[in-house]
Amino acid sequence: MTPELGVCYYPEHWPEEMWAADAARMMETGLKWVRIGEFAWSRMEPTPGDLRFDWLDRAVETLGAAGLKVVMGTPTATPPRWMLDKHPDMLAVDAQGNPRKFGSRRHYCFSHAGYIRECARIARIIGERYGRNPHVAAWQIDNEYGCHDTALSYGPSALQAFRVWLADQYGSIEALNTAWGNVFWSMEYDSFDQIDLPNLTVTEPNPAHVLAFRRFGSDQVVAFNKAQVDVLRPLTDAPLLHNYMGRVLEFDHFEIGADLDIATWDSYPIGFLSDRLEADEAHKTAFLQQGDPDMQAFHHDLYRAVGRGRWWVMEQQPGPVNWAPYNPAPLPGMVRLWSLEAVANGAEVVSYFRWRQAPFGQEQMHAGLQTPSGADAPGMAEARQTADDLARLGDVAPGKAQVAILFDYASDWAWTTQPQGAGFDYFRLVFSAYRALRRAGLSVDFISATDTPQDYRLILAPGLAVLDDALVGRVLNGCDLAIFGPRAGAITRDFQIPAQGRPGLPNLDCSVDLVETLPPESKRPVVGGGAAAHWVERLSGTAPDLLRFEDGTPALKGTDGLWYLAGFPDDTLWDRLIAKATDTVNLPIHAMPQGLRRRRTATHDVLINYNADPVTWNGIEIAGCDVLFLERDDI
Amino acid sequence: MTPELGVCYYPEHWPEEMWAADAARMMETGLKWVRIGEFAWSRMEPTPGDLRFDWLDRAVETLGAAGLKVVMGTPTATPPRWMLDKHPDMLAVDAQGNPRKFGSRRHYCFSHAGYIRECARIARIIGERYGRNPHVAAWQIDNEYGCHDTALSYGPSALQAFRVWLADQYGSIEALNTAWGNVFWSMEYDSFDQIDLPNLTVTEPNPAHVLAFRRFGSDQVVAFNKAQVDVLRPLTDAPLLHNYMGRVLEFDHFEIGADLDIATWDSYPIGFLSDRLEADEAHKTAFLQQGDPDMQAFHHDLYRAVGRGRWWVMEQQPGPVNWAPYNPAPLPGMVRLWSLEAVANGAEVVSYFRWRQAPFGQEQMHAGLQTPSGADAPGMAEARQTADDLARLGDVAPGKAQVAILFDYASDWAWTTQPQGAGFDYFRLVFSAYRALRRAGLSVDFISATDTPQDYRLILAPGLAVLDDALVGRVLNGCDLAIFGPRAGAITRDFQIPAQGRPGLPNLDCSVDLVETLPPESKRPVVGGGAAAHWVERLSGTAPDLLRFEDGTPALKGTDGLWYLAGFPDDTLWDRLIAKATDTVNLPIHAMPQGLRRRRTATHDVLINYNADPVTWNGIEIAGCDVLFLERDDI
Amino acid sequence: MTPELGVCYYPEHWPEEMWAADAARMMETGLKWVRIGEFAWSRMEPTPGDLRFDWLDRAVETLGAAGLKVVMGTPTATPPRWMLDKHPDMLAVDAQGNPRKFGSRRHYCFSHAGYIRECARIARIIGERYGRNPHVAAWQIDNEYGCHDTALSYGPSALQAFRVWLADQYGSIEALNTAWGNVFWSMEYDSFDQIDLPNLTVTEPNPAHVLAFRRFGSDQVVAFNKAQVDVLRPLTDAPLLHNYMGRVLEFDHFEIGADLDIATWDSYPIGFLSDRLEADEAHKTAFLQQGDPDMQAFHHDLYRAVGRGRWWVMEQQPGPVNWAPYNPAPLPGMVRLWSLEAVANGAEVVSYFRWRQAPFGQEQMHAGLQTPSGADAPGMAEARQTADDLARLGDVAPGKAQVAILFDYASDWAWTTQPQGAGFDYFRLVFSAYRALRRAGLSVDFISATDTPQDYRLILAPGLAVLDDALVGRVLNGCDLAIFGPRAGAITRDFQIPAQGRPGLPNLDCSVDLVETLPPESKRPVVGGGAAAHWVERLSGTAPDLLRFEDGTPALKGTDGLWYLAGFPDDTLWDRLIAKATDTVNLPIHAMPQGLRRRRTATHDVLINYNADPVTWNGIEIAGCDVLFLERDDI
Repeated sequence: MTPELGVCYYPEHWPEEMWAADAARMMETGLKWVRIGEFAWSRMEPTPGDLRFDWLDRAVETLGAAGLKVVMGTPTATPPRWMLDKHPDMLAVDAQGNPRKFGSRRHYCFSHAGYIRECARIARIIGERYGRNPHVAAWQIDNEYGCHDTALSYGPSALQAFRVWLADQYGSIEALNTAWGNVFWSMEYDSFDQIDLPNLTVTEPNPAHVLAFRRFGSDQVVAFNKAQVDVLRPLTDAPLLHNYMGRVLEFDHFEIGADLDIATWDSYPIGFLSDRLEADEAHKTAFLQQGDPDMQAFHHDLYRAVGRGRWWVMEQQPGPVNWAPYNPAPLPGMVRLWSLEAVANGAEVVSYFRWRQAPFGQEQMHAGLQTPSGADAPGMAEARQTADDLARLGDVAPGKAQVAILFDYASDWAWTTQPQGAGFDYFRLVFSAYRALRRAGLSVDFISATDTPQDYRLILAPGLAVLDDALVGRVLNGCDLAIFGPRAGAITRDFQIPAQGRPGLPNLDCSVDLVETLPPESKRPVVGGGAAAHWVERLSGTAPDLLRFEDGTPALKGTDGLWYLAGFPDDTLWDRLIAKATDTVNLPIHAMPQGLRRRRTATHDVLINYNADPVTWNGIEIAGCDVLFLERDDI
Repeated sequence: MTPELGVCYYPEHWPEEMWAADAARMMETGLKWVRIGEFAWSRMEPTPGDLRFDWLDRAVETLGAAGLKVVMGTPTATPPRWMLDKHPDMLAVDAQGNPRKFGSRRHYCFSHAGYIRECARIARIIGERYGRNPHVAAWQIDNEYGCHDTALSYGPSALQAFRVWLADQYGSIEALNTAWGNVFWSMEYDSFDQIDLPNLTVTEPNPAHVLAFRRFGSDQVVAFNKAQVDVLRPLTDAPLLHNYMGRVLEFDHFEIGADLDIATWDSYPIGFLSDRLEADEAHKTAFLQQGDPDMQAFHHDLYRAVGRGRWWVMEQQPGPVNWAPYNPAPLPGMVRLWSLEAVANGAEVVSYFRWRQAPFGQEQMHAGLQTPSGADAPGMAEARQTADDLARLGDVAPGKAQVAILFDYASDWAWTTQPQGAGFDYFRLVFSAYRALRRAGLSVDFISATDTPQDYRLILAPGLAVLDDALVGRVLNGCDLAIFGPRAGAITRDFQIPAQGRPGLPNLDCSVDLVETLPPESKRPVVGGGAAAHWVERLSGTAPDLLRFEDGTPALKGTDGLWYLAGFPDDTLWDRLIAKATDTVNLPIHAMPQGLRRRRTATHDVLINYNADPVTWNGIEIAGCDVLFLERDDI
Repeated sequence: MTPELGVCYYPEHWPEEMWAADAARMMETGLKWVRIGEFAWSRMEPTPGDLRFDWLDRAVETLGAAGLKVVMGTPTATPPRWMLDKHPDMLAVDAQGNPRKFGSRRHYCFSHAGYIRECARIARIIGERYGRNPHVAAWQIDNEYGCHDTALSYGPSALQAFRVWLADQYGSIEALNTAWGNVFWSMEYDSFDQIDLPNLTVTEPNPAHVLAFRRFGSDQVVAFNKAQVDVLRPLTDAPLLHNYMGRVLEFDHFEIGADLDIATWDSYPIGFLSDRLEADEAHKTAFLQQGDPDMQAFHHDLYRAVGRGRWWVMEQQPGPVNWAPYNPAPLPGMVRLWSLEAVANGAEVVSYFRWRQAPFGQEQMHAGLQTPSGADAPGMAEARQTADDLARLGDVAPGKAQVAILFDYASDWAWTTQPQGAGFDYFRLVFSAYRALRRAGLSVDFISATDTPQDYRLILAPGLAVLDDALVGRVLNGCDLAIFGPRAGAITRDFQIPAQGRPGLPNLDCSVDLVETLPPESKRPVVGGGAAAHWVERLSGTAPDLLRFEDGTPALKGTDGLWYLAGFPDDTLWDRLIAKATDTVNLPIHAMPQGLRRRRTATHDVLINYNADPVTWNGIEIAGCDVLFLERDDI
């Protein structure tokens, strides 16, 4: 498969006279795909039932005639103003109880049955019109579920649906009371109709209540998406996809992914560095105009799993964006680097957001490949160069990694529900593991808690909230060495401490007797170097101590093929742990200099230099902001 | 009196089969008291009027039969869900106007007459059932008034009651207008019905309005408690008590205490260090797993005053808790140290919270003496050792201190109402005075503004908002030297600057002409060392200057037996001031090393080492985290 | 014109017996003006229609008889409580949707027609009564528009008025949709009645929507003020004025100023340093008791423009205030320094706030010239001394500066609407330019975007959001050299990127191709010294590069008489820029030491030393906190 490039385009934003020239220029630039339609409901249906698709017909025809493959979006992320007159209660409600007003996007509640029907209706109309159109080669449903904190709503539609969901999950109110431990603080209910949404309580609500609401919230997103999938499937043979946003964890992407054909995500490396990455100032300064060296690859690898091997970057940052606290420009070369790194991680398509910068609306300061006046923005030349690189490169097969990380959205919900300590969250823990693997020059696959992994040397499953024997069995069967912990198997699905104790690994005599959380300035040092930070567990059991804290308590216990880790490792401890684990399973590692990363595909060793300056590694010099595709020769 | 140990227990959380073994194990551990019932309303009365006390009868019988004395709690801190159907408007309302929803605890408004009647009803039912039960040896009313910011409510019940309270206080609206100075900004009212609660105003409301609301809020808590006292008194001869929470200042504990027989408080040293103590990082790091060396003793001494000599620790932290930003484990020895320190300060009972860690609900990560599975947690052995220590120690009489601090809840309300400067609050000021006395090796008593103290060498009354001649007279008669200020006598009861000027000390020619507040990095240095921080007053008057600021203005003025202090002293200035004052009254002091504290009882000199490492003082070595009871020999 | 002193006085706060003595003492102190009445509605009209002006008649007579000129205030900033019964929906609503309750001041919505009529009614009553009174020599309308974040309201009155305003501005909903670019995210409307206020949206609302709301909000304040102007004009010949608050930018002061005769503002140098100035800790510490050396002069110069030459300080801080985070006392000399600096900048009157400190209400900790008991506060002697200075000084003419800054309120609304980067805002940008001019010893005039400036050597127009050829032409005609940028001409009036590109300066071939925002720790260095911070633009065009960034891109482009600046200069770059510009136009500059400032009037060179210690400059020693009026000798 040869990876391809694409771009996001809004014909409704521009005079029709410009479309053909735009399409021709896209083709000249080497772009093969164009995404349209996903915010255009007010133009498709200006007033209820008044369908206007002539302009979209002409847009598809113009783009297709130029040779572009169209991704058609359903416009359900932006219900038009008249929708509120039909469904005044469709608005999502924030955790403070305020309805989220019209005037931007994503203002709907995922549980509003009337709005779900409207979405199915418009999807059917579009599907019927373009499902067999030869130019329409893929379908995007909605846009960035959960972005702007929209996965959860605290309004009446959500409340009603939550009660129904609970009744379905628990059968009887007695069962729910028992499962949640509602005898605590006299929180027992007499009927499902007494249960409220878990916001605005005096102190924290029952974590069982919150976690149920979080599971419900995810299920509602999955069902919302499924409603459109069910409409479109019979109407088209083109693949269905959604574009996820980075570090959005409020719903189970694996479950949505199972209903779709391709996973795509929206990659804004510089925006993410500024807006959603915990790092010290030196790191943020060093990579200010490049983005974090691991954040993109993490999501690439994650979405490869969500898409069961098929994934795209749907929106690739092409210049400064508008939404982060600070919005610097990418260093020259970075747009190409990001694009090629995605390819190295197996992307089928990398699509830039957006073709031409809009002169109006919320994103008018968001760069495109063209400036608002139609001149080339700096990203254009890099897109062109990337297209040439891809043509030279030919087929790229992602290959299978030798190391996997088990990623579990429900664990994030659990630890967000009851963090127990500031500075500890699931994403940070998993990401710190991922970085450590990358510092060792390793490529990484992700697996979900329902996957059956096979033939890995090493699987890491940090922070996995709920364990069961079947899951543990699948992991152990799928690798030579599995490392669980910290905070693994710490709760039941109903957020109770399991009766069998924690972590409850069937094959390891190791118990968590005590949990501590620590301020950042107080770490718990490990004999020989490194330390646990934020989170420390006190372990007992007959399993051998593989590492010990300086106070003599175990930091790592394990037997053949199964280790348990007692805390949140700092970087030094992660490095020691990865070295020890890979040594145990005879997997060679290669320490990478800061900012240089390596991705091994089936055919290449790809070196990606996020530094502004050149780096030499193993005798190879890589220029700053450059990518090298080397024939794979098992360095 | 020989101090005793106890524990908090929730029979409703565990199968009835476990109760007898639990009781036996408590006795083996040396525990004599067990508190039950205080959150069990949904099990006592699952639906309105459906009383179920058979299980509680059996629990009391089982525990009592084992030899334990029972503290019976009224369950009014956790109204069950059905209460909301009966009284939909009983919910407290937060300062933003949001009702505080069901789903945790303490969601009631103290002013809701219907709920107060429900509380009296359930108290009567329990009182009638267990008031003469030989195993029930004490009664706890409600639980931790004011915890989770629940003392004040901004809803309709509070509003209605506030208007009635105001009419009662002021008699006529004209009197209120005058007392509050409502001519300012045209805030005059025509009737009490026009007065709203003082939240959500454009800029700060009239401080007289806020302070009246704060006094009202305290009165409502006192009345709420009194309603249950009045029910229980005729039904039992056992003492009545409440368990206060640390650093909760929203109501007058002395007033509640006057209606009860014993004061108890809930001592969580490590949680408090993390959650509710201003200190620099070095201090917080040094005492991370021990708690602040003065915070517990401060409350012990304060509640000894609230209980007029009779006080307990009702909930003693036995391991990591769940609710602070960081929740590390106590160092070995600390659970015993905390227990024995309480005894040194005169506790009759120290009761651990809780017997066995719950595997469900909000506090499932809160350690108990047992783990969820029933194994010994680290606290168990220390409780056992403490019981042995107490047996060896025999009678302990708290003794009377030679120094007292006047503590006044209403002064906190006043300074919170109008702080005038960031970084200044009443608790911090008083606590800084307390620490300074302890650094000098002194033991401290607390007195209230209505007490008549006797035979003290020294009384400190920092930050006392309202002064009157009678109060000043009582203080002066009760000691050799009294130190008032800063910010003493600064307002009238209605939050006006007194017509006679500030501070208005009848026996001292000293006036406050000007008040300044300072950022933390700008202190006002005193000649000879030390400085005032946060708050500085410019004094005039013929009273001699005992200390001067470097700019020549007085820092301390005074005559025989009465000094006035012009600012918030830093530690160095406090130390100088205590040295000067004790020298003046011929009271010997002994500088204590960091983390080592001394408490003198009627019979012992007790040395308490909060440091992890040993300390030598006066030739005596005290191990880290250890307590020494020395025969009192006037060191 | 000889400048005069005045004071703010509240006869309603004091027994009538005190008035005559107060008036006599004011005269003795050298005060000529006394402002009264502006918060006294509840005393003028205790219940609806019950007019009580006898007390005010006597107050005016007493003050006037003593020789004082009275400024009469309309009391509309403090509607009394009964007004709410007549107009329950008059309350402003905050951005979270909460009505702002009675109990302080400024609780009205500027769009409430009923309240506007009430204000016109009371203005008419007062105007008819005192409009020809010989003692009433000026009229103040309302008090500190916009203070406490009150310019904007999000309630039903504002919503209704906003829709009417929009219909008036845009004519048709189609025109509005096009102007706002509502095709973006399907935000198109079918009617004006569908448009909501732009708060509580999911993510940011359309900037066009917000900017329209901000323009509307300003217009409402202007109209509110105009309603009282229209009533008073026929009733009096005395000048009308308003007292603006410092750094309040929510409405266009120039537009209000155009309807009035004199601009006045309320100058609280120490409060502003603590509360509303971004500066590093060293700077805040150095000027803690003096205030920032440029903040007052900035407002003096700005309000001289707002008042078209006629301006006062209506409220001059005389000692510690009550409302900032920290409230230290002025150093000795500062009250005089502030007063004389105002005179140096052309103030006709400097009026102290307030005569006697109130012992009640929100401002009871706000110092006056007298203490609450009527003793002299430290400010009194300095007022007296200032009066003597003014008598000696005689006439002072402000003179015309050779440098001007174009200040534009709408630009602040624009950049607040869409800041694009943290750390960039319009006030900070303009103030940094002003400081740089003052560091060069220059005096500064302000001009508005509608002014026709004349005969300036240099005009700076930083951050001017909207440019048009006429405006640029007026600026170029009015000076030898104009410097625009950064972020100039960046949007249309409807917040779109202009079709002609940015900045769109008709006489300069210079385009902004890209915009970047940077974190504070990452600056973009300029060859030769200095750097741009926060905000950087990438320029192209044939206009010569006058300065370049170290990466080779232009930092400053320009031709004869017109320069464009590509970023937010740090202090070093500002200094270089001012040096280069003044050198170009042959305007001599004189580097000023830290804290020493110079103001050139028509007759004097005034040196103002904000430092606590003496400074020598050009052979002249100026004592700390002192002001020297030198005969102008063209230093």
